[in-house]
Amino acid sequence: MLSAARRRIFSASSSLRNSVRARPFATSPKSAAKTLTPGLLAVGAGTAVAGGTLFFKKQPVIANESPLTVEPEFEPDLSIFPEGLNAEVPLVELGSVYEIIPGLKPEMLMREKMELLLKFYQKEIVAGLERADSSGKTFIVDEWTRGENMGGGITRVFQDGRVFQKGGVNFSAIYGELPPAAAQRMHANHSELKVPENGKLPFYACGLSLVIHPQHYLAPSVHLNYRYFETLNEDGTPQSWWFGGGQDLSPMYYNKDDATHFHKLLKEFCDFHDPTYYSRFKKWADDYFRIKFRNEARGIGGIFFDDLHDKEPDMLFKFVGDGLSRFLPSYLPAVKRAYLPAAGGEERPTPEAGKHWQGIRRGRYAEFNLAVDRGTQFGLQTPGSRIESILMTLPKHCSWEYNYHPGPETLEGKTVEVLKNPIEYV
Amino acid sequence: MLSAARRRIFSASSSLRNSVRARPFATSPKSAAKTLTPGLLAVGAGTAVAGGTLFFKKQPVIANESPLTVEPEFEPDLSIFPEGLNAEVPLVELGSVYEIIPGLKPEMLMREKMELLLKFYQKEIVAGLERADSSGKTFIVDEWTRGENMGGGITRVFQDGRVFQKGGVNFSAIYGELPPAAAQRMHANHSELKVPENGKLPFYACGLSLVIHPQHYLAPSVHLNYRYFETLNEDGTPQSWWFGGGQDLSPMYYNKDDATHFHKLLKEFCDFHDPTYYSRFKKWADDYFRIKFRNEARGIGGIFFDDLHDKEPDMLFKFVGDGLSRFLPSYLPAVKRAYLPAAGGEERPTPEAGKHWQGIRRGRYAEFNLAVDRGTQFGLQTPGSRIESILMTLPKHCSWEYNYHPGPETLEGKTVEVLKNPIEYV
Repeated sequence: MLSAARRRIFSASSSLRNSVRARPFATSPKSAAKTLTPGLLAVGAGTAVAGGTLFFKKQPVIANESPLTVEPEFEPDLSIFPEGLNAEVPLVELGSVYEIIPGLKPEMLMREKMELLLKFYQKEIVAGLERADSSGKTFIVDEWTRGENMGGGITRVFQDGRVFQKGGVNFSAIYGELPPAAAQRMHANHSELKVPENGKLPFYACGLSLVIHPQHYLAPSVHLNYRYFETLNEDGTPQSWWFGGGQDLSPMYYNKDDATHFHKLLKEFCDFHDPTYYSRFKKWADDYFRIKFRNEARGIGGIFFDDLHDKEPDMLFKFVGDGLSRFLPSYLPAVKRAYLPAAGGEERPTPEAGKHWQGIRRGRYAEFNLAVDRGTQFGLQTPGSRIESILMTLPKHCSWEYNYHPGPETLEGKTVEVLKNPIEYV
Repeated sequence: MLSAARRRIFSASSSLRNSVRARPFATSPKSAAKTLTPGLLAVGAGTAVAGGTLFFKKQPVIANESPLTVEPEFEPDLSIFPEGLNAEVPLVELGSVYEIIPGLKPEMLMREKMELLLKFYQKEIVAGLERADSSGKTFIVDEWTRGENMGGGITRVFQDGRVFQKGGVNFSAIYGELPPAAAQRMHANHSELKVPENGKLPFYACGLSLVIHPQHYLAPSVHLNYRYFETLNEDGTPQSWWFGGGQDLSPMYYNKDDATHFHKLLKEFCDFHDPTYYSRFKKWADDYFRIKFRNEARGIGGIFFDDLHDKEPDMLFKFVGDGLSRFLPSYLPAVKRAYLPAAGGEERPTPEAGKHWQGIRRGRYAEFNLAVDRGTQFGLQTPGSRIESILMTLPKHCSWEYNYHPGPETLEGKTVEVLKNPIEYV
């Protein structure tokens, strides 16, 4: 068992924070285990939180006092161009994460670095989306803790904007124990794991998880998730570690330009780190983001990877940092296009048909998240999970109609065709 | 492996049908195995199909030609009373299934009897719901087969009526093989099962599965499912058998009278067969129809049971028959009440608040079906399943709002309170 103090990450006192000393992150879990001390683990994470300019406090959510402005019948006028979509979304230089993020240093613990990185981009992405929304509405902040000394998170949620109907950009950092069944499943994929005799496997996990559903039926939904995972020895030191994540796009109506732009930016940053990553992770996304029982993808894919530990941790950290930096530039142009006049030869649905199809596609999105996605299932089955943060990914409005299959010559049917047969875009 | 002929149930030739002879259903799986022959298995099922007045033919569903009239924006006027709800719904005498169903005889094979029973009530229930809907709209019929000689079903679906927004009443009778993982799970619950060396377990299953979502936010959704399951020896004879099923009610707004009436009728028919059934199966429903990660039930429960083989098969068959006979009388009064003036002291929401909350509750319904329900997951994971028939249970419109929790003093909050803490109604 981990002691409470070792698992504390959100309650480090300021005196502890001030006394933090940088330590090199060991390049293998084995040597890391030797250099980490329980005290530093707690302090390290606490400092990351403080350095990230956001802070945690226990702030329980009170029934019926959600700070979200919810307007059940809200429907913005889609014919008016939202000025915020004209804002430039610069591409930062690849591999420059240490120059971009204030306070980030190579010698910090990986847990510290990841928490700094994820919270930096949580702020950046929220700001970019609020600007694009053009309504002046802001994401609400829900800070939460997961029981005593087991971690917590910052859930940032948006609803009923002009451009975005619903979305969330959620950071979490969790200490816990995998129950025996989950530990056994994990052991099957990570043979080096040593599961303690009681069957429970202590772990640390942090991640940024994001889903956005726009108002416009021509604008795609999008998902991003990057995470870092450690299993822990009984003394709280890391036993094994890996990165996971990815980002994928779910258009209601397939548009080749949007899809190509999205994949092009993903391929560029993947290639910068490893020439094999894009093709491997693109295929992985095509396999993962698939509603198997419908033989249909959730969208046009992107990249997905898990259990990544094939390079030095810091190289993978930079890779993840670059992925996060590509979120806004890869996504927002597709949202903007929805409000622009149709490009030459582009067919568009009527608003009525578009809204109807948007409801159906969002039903499919919910189907994937609830019935297929292993990440969601892991969350829902983990005792003490924050359900609202996990299920913020569900669209505001979903429809299911019996046996609804658009004809192959319709715009809707052409989109289904692409979802059934993944395309190589770049 | 079963031969194709043994698994055929929908393609028995008329000469075979005419030559069927009644056989007593053995009272234990062991002796049943001795008296059944592969030929009779196929004939028996084929006869049941013919005797049920509905018939099967291969009728593939063609994209974009759904015979359903779908009206995406359809919203009937809830202030007009639907006259069909005044029709009387008689309670047939308990235990009288052999007097009620034409052609049903005690000496038939259980597969025959169950198929006759389920299809009889499929017709009865569809007719009762169409009458109640008062619009003249009818359920469409989709007959389907599951690959070659593996069974099939009759899906009957309704959408956009005056009283019912969406619903399905589906019969299916399936021959298949449980994949090794599912066979192992089943073996864990049925230690007498002998799983063949290849790990795959041949089975037969038939069932009637029903979900109805009304238009009115004061009218509850309802679910019923009765099924009969056999695992088969390599020669196609039954190895083990059991019944399963139940029925449960999901109000958007809790109403004590509706809930008490529903449970009273269930208790009456349960008590007729076994004084312990209602209390056991009521508790089982409270446990089963529960969104565990929300610590909230899907509705006000009802009854649920599985793996029932504690009596002679024919006694359980009569029990299931009585359950089916109670569906319309237990449910329709609650639908009618929605259109009647509020009873003394009854508080009601505004139509806007009601519609909004209906969307949220239906999101919860979809959550249960997609993320929790083992029956749905079993169906979605079974190769060759008919996905549209399984997912017809999903409401037409669902909503999810971040962290939406009505206050404890609101009508919505009082309903949530009941969903969190099951009540003993009778």
